[in-house]
This record gives sequence, C-alpha cells and structure tokens, in this order.
Amino acid sequence: MLERIQFQTTKDGVIPLTDQIKECVEKSGVKSGILCAFITHTTAALTVNSFWDPLGHEDIQDEIRRLIPTRVDFKHQHDTPEDAAGHVKCTLIGPSMSFIIDDGKLLLGHSQGIYFLEFDGPRNRECYVKIVPE
Amino acid sequence: MLERIQFQTTKDGVIPLTDQIKECVEKSGVKSGILCAFITHTTAALTVNSFWDPLGHEDIQDEIRRLIPTRVDFKHQHDTPEDAAGHVKCTLIGPSMSFIIDDGKLLLGHSQGIYFLEFDGPRNRECYVKIVPE
Amino acid sequence: MLERIQFQTTKDGVIPLTDQIKECVEKSGVKSGILCAFITHTTAALTVNSFWDPLGHEDIQDEIRRLIPTRVDFKHQHDTPEDAAGHVKCTLIGPSMSFIIDDGKLLLGHSQGIYFLEFDGPRNRECYVKIVPE
Repeated sequence: MLERIQFQTTKDGVIPLTDQIKECVEKSGVKSGILCAFITHTTAALTVNSFWDPLGHEDIQDEIRRLIPTRVDFKHQHDTPEDAAGHVKCTLIGPSMSFIIDDGKLLLGHSQGIYFLEFDGPRNRECYVKIVPE
Repeated sequence: MLERIQFQTTKDGVIPLTDQIKECVEKSGVKSGILCAFITHTTAALTVNSFWDPLGHEDIQDEIRRLIPTRVDFKHQHDTPEDAAGHVKCTLIGPSMSFIIDDGKLLLGHSQGIYFLEFDGPRNRECYVKIVPE
Repeated sequence: MLERIQFQTTKDGVIPLTDQIKECVEKSGVKSGILCAFITHTTAALTVNSFWDPLGHEDIQDEIRRLIPTRVDFKHQHDTPEDAAGHVKCTLIGPSMSFIIDDGKLLLGHSQGIYFLEFDGPRNRECYVKIVPE
C-alpha cells in the first residue's frame, strides 16, 4: 500500500499532516512497524514540532529565512533566487521522516505534530506514506 | 517489540545512547533490518557524530546556539524564549533517525556514536526504538 | 542483503548516488518497502535535492560553509578545525535517510536526486543500503 496525501500550501506555509498520517496507519491495519513519510519536492521539508502555539511555526519559518536569506547572488540560475534559497532550506531540514507504529497507533509525544514546511508556494503539494510491518 | 530508553539530561546536554540502542538490537534477535529511533520531545533532537572528542559535542551545542540564539522577541509565547529557540533547533536537527541492522549488529562507522541533544533541561527524557526485520 | 556503494570524493564535493541506489532496489527485487541509506562517516551527510542545476549544489555547500565556518577556536582539538566544522555540519544535515519503494521502484520526485555531501575530502567514502519489504 502506498498512500498519497495531497494538499494546497500558502507561501512559506506550515501545513499540519498529523491527522492524515494517523489515518494512513489506521487504514493499513498494521499494529507494529515503521512508517516512512516522504515528500517529492525540493523547496519544502517535513518536520515534527509542537502544536500548542501556532506562532511557534511562524518562528520556525522566520528563523529558517534568517539562516538562509533569499539573495540575488546564488550561483543557481535555473529558477528564482527564492527557489535557490528554498533548495538549501530543503537540504537543511529534509524531505523524509521515519515514525514508529506501535499498538496500532502512530507513536507521537503529547505535544508533537507532523508538519509540511513550504519554502515556496502557494502550490499543490503531496506527501507519500509507506508502512512496513514488524 | 517497542523499546523505551529512559534517561536524565543536563541543560543543553549531549547524552550517548549508542550502548542502549545496541542492546535493543541484541535483545530483538533481528539479524537484518531497519531500526527507527524516535524521541517524543520538541526541544531536543537525535544525532550521530564522532565519539572521539567529547569537546566536539560542546562545539555542536555551541554552534546550534549560535545559529538559533535564545531571544526575547520570538512570536511563540506559550512558554519561555529558551523553549521557543529549542523548538526551532528541534526542527533543524530532527527527532527521528533510521539505522541499518546487519549480521545481527547495528551498523555504525568506527567513530560514530548516537546522541540525544538536549535543548532545554535538566529533564527526564526518553527515546523509543522499533525494529523491522528484512 | 546489505549493499555498499563505494566512491571517491573531492574537497567539499557533492556526489550523486541516485543511480547506485536505484540499482540496489532493482537488484533486491523488492516491490514495496522502505530503504534506509546510511553513511558511516562523521564529516559528511546525505541529502535529496534538485539535479537540474549543478550550481545549486555549490550554493548548498557555500551556505553550509557560511552557517558553520571553519574557525581556529573550536573546543574540539582531536583533529583539524576543518574537521571540527565538518562534525557540526554532519549533525545539521544528517548521515541517514529513508526512502519509499513502490511498484518495484525508488519513489523520487521528477527533480529529486540523492547526494552525498562531503565536508572534508578528497576521501574514499561509502554509503550502505538496506531494504525492508512491506
């Protein structure tokens, strides 16, 4: 089984994927195993962080933008300077993440949520999910 | 099987988990497979790095603090500025890591160790381990 | 099955591993599963990024060098300042990455390639690959 989660992003948006990924686990019927979430994009990333304060998500994008500012003198000329910065951000955070399934549920801490970080957008994006049982 | 490794951290500490994770592999009896290590916290991360020079671990935390300094003007107000910085550091390094098991052993380079990076603390923390055989 | 991909790097080089990892999938005969790619080094990392513009790879290494400059006052004294910086870069990007195998193929976006990032070099390096079927 391969699940594809499709969604629309906003510019530099932070999109929650926790519920959709939990649904993939439920649908699979797998009681124990490893789940791989993978995005097929190069100007975005996957992360896990706290869902308590949505303003914290803005801080994350703010800090990533501060670390890798969009500038006009990137060597990469294939597309825009913003995309060039987005590629670097993608390498920094990463497009792949592994999770544990136990007792038929996705193992997450009490404050953890799974998020898609958009470094471009608005765009149509997707996240793939594959589960391997123990 | 789900293994839970529990430990106490110090402020901004670097806690070695290599031996405990190797024990999980041994205990599982799995000869070949993939291991997922996952922490359920949002102000900490997992990493693999050299164990030769403990001062190198201080450099890692120093550099992460330099990249994401604790500041009073984060938008995140749910808890302290230090926690707000910790959340960003968590996204930067990540709470999940996959390893290869081969010939009944955890595959690691001759200088690689597995470490828990505390971005808060001192706290009681835990790392979960799930193994899926080939 | 454990596959080992061996290669030679240049100083701060970006080495494509996509074709070799695709070959591992083909050779395994696995139709659906998860692949773990793992490097056994502490001054290098694995990433996925766009293959369209090779100059983008230079930007990635440039930006990582800008974020973690080589400096003489690292606490780590076991080897050179360049290696000390390389260890921090290794933690920032990471030595492990999980991929999805579906329909007998490695799942990658139309512009995604898998790359080894050298933070030292030139050196002989290797990447291990383990596949677990669904």
